[in-house]
Amino acid sequence: MPADGGGLVLVLNAGSSSLKFAGFAAMPEGPEPRFGGQVEGIGAAPHLVARNAAGEVLADHRWDGGDAPANHAEALGVIVRGLDQALQGEAILAIGHRVVHGGTDFAAPLRIDDAAMAALDRLVPLAPLHQPHNLVGIRAAAAHFPGVPQVACFDTAFHRTQSWAAETYALPPRFYDQGIRRYGFHGLSYEYISRRIAAEDAALGAGRLVVAHLGNGASLCAIEGGRSRASTMGFTALDGIPMGTRSGQIDPGVVLHMIDALGMTTAEVTRLLYNGSGLKGLSGVSQDVRQIEAAGTEAAGRALEHFAFRVRREIGAMAASIGGIDALVFTAGIGENAHGLRARICAGLEFLGITLDPARNAANAAEISAAGAAVRVLVRRTDEEGMIARHTLDLLRAG
Amino acid sequence: MPADGGGLVLVLNAGSSSLKFAGFAAMPEGPEPRFGGQVEGIGAAPHLVARNAAGEVLADHRWDGGDAPANHAEALGVIVRGLDQALQGEAILAIGHRVVHGGTDFAAPLRIDDAAMAALDRLVPLAPLHQPHNLVGIRAAAAHFPGVPQVACFDTAFHRTQSWAAETYALPPRFYDQGIRRYGFHGLSYEYISRRIAAEDAALGAGRLVVAHLGNGASLCAIEGGRSRASTMGFTALDGIPMGTRSGQIDPGVVLHMIDALGMTTAEVTRLLYNGSGLKGLSGVSQDVRQIEAAGTEAAGRALEHFAFRVRREIGAMAASIGGIDALVFTAGIGENAHGLRARICAGLEFLGITLDPARNAANAAEISAAGAAVRVLVRRTDEEGMIARHTLDLLRAG
Repeated sequence: MPADGGGLVLVLNAGSSSLKFAGFAAMPEGPEPRFGGQVEGIGAAPHLVARNAAGEVLADHRWDGGDAPANHAEALGVIVRGLDQALQGEAILAIGHRVVHGGTDFAAPLRIDDAAMAALDRLVPLAPLHQPHNLVGIRAAAAHFPGVPQVACFDTAFHRTQSWAAETYALPPRFYDQGIRRYGFHGLSYEYISRRIAAEDAALGAGRLVVAHLGNGASLCAIEGGRSRASTMGFTALDGIPMGTRSGQIDPGVVLHMIDALGMTTAEVTRLLYNGSGLKGLSGVSQDVRQIEAAGTEAAGRALEHFAFRVRREIGAMAASIGGIDALVFTAGIGENAHGLRARICAGLEFLGITLDPARNAANAAEISAAGAAVRVLVRRTDEEGMIARHTLDLLRAG
Repeated sequence: MPADGGGLVLVLNAGSSSLKFAGFAAMPEGPEPRFGGQVEGIGAAPHLVARNAAGEVLADHRWDGGDAPANHAEALGVIVRGLDQALQGEAILAIGHRVVHGGTDFAAPLRIDDAAMAALDRLVPLAPLHQPHNLVGIRAAAAHFPGVPQVACFDTAFHRTQSWAAETYALPPRFYDQGIRRYGFHGLSYEYISRRIAAEDAALGAGRLVVAHLGNGASLCAIEGGRSRASTMGFTALDGIPMGTRSGQIDPGVVLHMIDALGMTTAEVTRLLYNGSGLKGLSGVSQDVRQIEAAGTEAAGRALEHFAFRVRREIGAMAASIGGIDALVFTAGIGENAHGLRARICAGLEFLGITLDPARNAANAAEISAAGAAVRVLVRRTDEEGMIARHTLDLLRAG
């Protein structure tokens, strides 16, 4: 395979108005980060930032004229033109894409061909707010890089090791059979964290981890022996704990009440639960924990209190799903940085063996549990792009 | 107060097609059960059964003609005529009613007058499937027993000690303010169990209890020092763990998908989630655990497996809500009798200190935890009617 002889793996993550990218050198031992960045504000006021692996800014560009990229294909064009200089003739071996939904069939990364693309199109109804953007990204990349292998890596795939009991809702089985089941998301992050913990400490990697992926989207996952056993996210990325702007789990009776008694349309409820709820809705300030902490209002304090309560509750639930907990791992933006929230979350979990070292926690140290605590509490930076590059390279090398 | 000098407290619990009743002698130390029973099948094929406190059948009657009670008022008339003989001239001092919803205002039992009745009417939109029947029962009793004090005892009241963080959903605060919050239900059962445990063992009663009320409706409650701190049921009696025919918690995105993608009406979704889901929907057999266990089909086995998984998960969540667990108490029909399910639920909770003694569990013993286990696991018969009688008598005696 040529991948061993140099060349790059490009990773693309297409959201509703953003296109994130990252480049990895295809080294014999695996992908090595070279650069990354994003175009955000696509369709509005686009802004391109790119950095090298050391974090130095390679490009920072805003458009003020009619040449601004108006869609994902044009944004990819901008990225590619910028890459041409950076690549210095190095070949792009393959492109790995983050795809939210792999449905019931895809429990592993998928080499894209026409049949695969059709299958991914059929999954759009399961993730109408996210999947179409992912597919636009794949199509744009295929047009820009004809003949270069494209690989879809799914946020759901890592969870396909869950039992039927963990996957089903308590509905008649025909709903499970037609795909209404708990898929779980953030799987690339959980897979990365699980592999990384196992690489650091094989015994811990074989044990019971509860991982809290607390970013703008947020969920928890119970992992046993490297396999996902339960997760707080379900059929959609709305289930589970509160998020930046999403409600997380709410009584299905609330949805019915909003429609039947409050006269809201399903579009209004969808918008409220996805975009107007969670930390932003509760605080009335922002979805950003730093801004909420800075606001210092009563509503802001309560938003954080509720978030901590819900995460703490679900740590207990995840541990009960796998018969215990050997380590709690915080990751993603909030998980990696919001030490005040981590302290609030863990307060009251001493009965599980979880006790923080306040100084280490305040320093966002890699291990924040108190000396001698029964459960290790870790902080790890997640790397979904790195996981995608790894999968893409593995698939390429497997032929 | 005349209540100390004899007389009876009558307890009424009006459901959609049933009217349960119980009579308690007003003894100085509290209510003492005398008789109880129900008329079921109201409006269809009514069937009256009444028993004395020893369980002996006092009456067992079916109607085959046009004189069958056609509504709750007529069913109450039948009960009253039967009572006349049994009462032997003893006065009915007060009537206590089970009322599902007390809304945000009623954290204690309520003496009914016109203003109170109007307030309860205003709560109907919060529990449209249950509250109207309860109110029909109150009105029928007021017509039959003019001048006799009527007391409403709420399924929600015991939970009003929960924190804001436990009560709110992660929605903008205006929804909490307009009453969209977690009320919790089965409060009369939890209050009875909590008081009973405290009477048996004051230290345990002051500690942290997780109570699993597993009946046809089912929920869990985290109780600390006799106060409800968290519960699995929320805005409606649909939230939380699966039940006989109810789904329990499902992703709000599933409700939206059923309406938007599957074309179901909210009435169809409501019917599915309340009447066609849970153990009955999953098993395709019945809502009755004994019949599901007897069926022995794969779907039946899976239904029980999922139920156990969800209850186990929520035991962990409830414990995390109150910083630990000193005792786990099973109550209500399934909780008191389904030892196979209790064993399944507790398997994997050893990390919390929960270990069953198989023989004691199989015998439905009062204490089923293994000798030396850190957490006591108890089985107690709940007594919601007794709790209502107690509240009613207390309110009467307080003047």
